[in-house]
Amino acid sequence: MLILNQNQIKNLFSSHEVLEAIERAFKIFHENKFEMPDRMHAHHEDITLLLMPCFTEGFFGTKLVSVNPKNTAIGKPSIYGSMILNDSKTGEPIALLNGAALTAVRTGAVGASGIKYTSKESAQNIGIIGTGIQGFTQAIFACAVRPVKKIHVFDLNEEKLAEFAASLQEKLPEVEICSQTSSETLVKESDVIICATSANEPVIPDDPELLRGKCFIGIGSYKPNMRELPDALFSLIENVWVDTPFAAFESGDIAKPLEKGLLGEKQVKPISNLVANETYDSSETSFFKSVGMALFDVLVAEYLYQKAIKENIGTQIDL
Amino acid sequence: MLILNQNQIKNLFSSHEVLEAIERAFKIFHENKFEMPDRMHAHHEDITLLLMPCFTEGFFGTKLVSVNPKNTAIGKPSIYGSMILNDSKTGEPIALLNGAALTAVRTGAVGASGIKYTSKESAQNIGIIGTGIQGFTQAIFACAVRPVKKIHVFDLNEEKLAEFAASLQEKLPEVEICSQTSSETLVKESDVIICATSANEPVIPDDPELLRGKCFIGIGSYKPNMRELPDALFSLIENVWVDTPFAAFESGDIAKPLEKGLLGEKQVKPISNLVANETYDSSETSFFKSVGMALFDVLVAEYLYQKAIKENIGTQIDL
Repeated sequence: MLILNQNQIKNLFSSHEVLEAIERAFKIFHENKFEMPDRMHAHHEDITLLLMPCFTEGFFGTKLVSVNPKNTAIGKPSIYGSMILNDSKTGEPIALLNGAALTAVRTGAVGASGIKYTSKESAQNIGIIGTGIQGFTQAIFACAVRPVKKIHVFDLNEEKLAEFAASLQEKLPEVEICSQTSSETLVKESDVIICATSANEPVIPDDPELLRGKCFIGIGSYKPNMRELPDALFSLIENVWVDTPFAAFESGDIAKPLEKGLLGEKQVKPISNLVANETYDSSETSFFKSVGMALFDVLVAEYLYQKAIKENIGTQIDL
Repeated sequence: MLILNQNQIKNLFSSHEVLEAIERAFKIFHENKFEMPDRMHAHHEDITLLLMPCFTEGFFGTKLVSVNPKNTAIGKPSIYGSMILNDSKTGEPIALLNGAALTAVRTGAVGASGIKYTSKESAQNIGIIGTGIQGFTQAIFACAVRPVKKIHVFDLNEEKLAEFAASLQEKLPEVEICSQTSSETLVKESDVIICATSANEPVIPDDPELLRGKCFIGIGSYKPNMRELPDALFSLIENVWVDTPFAAFESGDIAKPLEKGLLGEKQVKPISNLVANETYDSSETSFFKSVGMALFDVLVAEYLYQKAIKENIGTQIDL
């Protein structure tokens, strides 16, 4: 059994290859060649435990994620995750991967597929709202799909913003990193705007003229009470592209506009339709919303496992 | 994070200490100081995946077990398991244990609690029907709770029986291992009879005079269509002791007699009542039926983890 920890995963992956794995996942989704039971939620005191299994032809896997918001008060991460990958024929466990690193990498690539299939090919200016691990990974993956020259960054917390901009500059020395003083100026300067916050209310002004002509990528909202994008967006777009149909009720970024009648159910479409048919959305304004699914985890874990074996990375243990 | 593999677990545990961990589990069960969601079943082609989480005060854990009966045809185990143990306060994963070894050890100790609380203290003759890993572990743990002189063994497969008897003799040099030619002679010679088979029909003759005065431990049947004990047993006993109330519908050894009216629902009682109150069943004939539960896995994993840390056993990895 192979163990891949956080640093090994960070040093192992290539953005282009993870993107290919995510595109394989979208094709498997489109062809319905997978089995993904509803994820299991368990609660005990401050902890929520999520168990997320998914079966594909070659491998199956279970991501175990525990969330305790009180951890931050004692200087620990609020989310811990691990992923067990198994052979689909025998059930033998073949790898254990750090779940946080896996999730960051696969979510980065899912966001970038949204950019690839729904934004202008010439997009050079990327805007990132939110300065967590997800904002960072989204920025890196965006560079894999567009000829990025500038990345505009914004966060309400100025200290975190300065740190984030400095780390991103170090990681991407050839790209100009510009800290913005408001989400309004960030949107103005950007072709593609990625929201990766834990906001409950829209983080962008509700102004159609500001939003027109841009591509929006929603990453942060994964609960019905969380929302990042404003009402005005829905007067400009024909469709919302989603990574999974569950997004329609799991995320407030779709559930709220549906509830308000700003969006119709038929306008919510799986982006796997675009990926599987290699077609691109050329609308003036576009919106892709991701909530994630275990199928992505399995395909990216499979890719990381196979690459690690080839490059002799990780720790082999006999379980 | 600590990794404990099959051999490390086998060499680490002491039967008495595992038994203590199982008794702690029964007390926690009795006091209802745990949270055990229904286990999750997922199916894909030949594979069944079971996800079994359980929370206690100090730790929580998830046992992942996959079953593929077709594996035996290619010389692989039909069951693979792994257990992830987490800190209950933060959710941090702290150990990964081999699930097969953990299950064998905890089931051995659960069977032995049945012997300890429901058989005569002087019992010297143990009978084991079934020659799998479970029969082996039950024999070892029985010696931890009774002054065992002889272990009688029986299996329909003579070749497996001979191998089993030889291995058990090597493991327990001070005990006399006697291969029996029928389950009838085995029952005659034994004070305690442990059934650890995958039978669908009773493996013991349906004769009350043969069964009278003995203690029966049912380990093998975990589905409603599996059964090891005969109807006659239920004319001799006052109560069936179970490790969990689920046993009443999960195992054919209880579900069938209930269905036939040989047993009333009120006669099915949790053995945790005995363990928590340190009382013993002194009936002439007794029956304890185990189907297992995740609470046992967590308590035994916690014990193995703490002992391994103390004795510097296992592989420390940074996930």
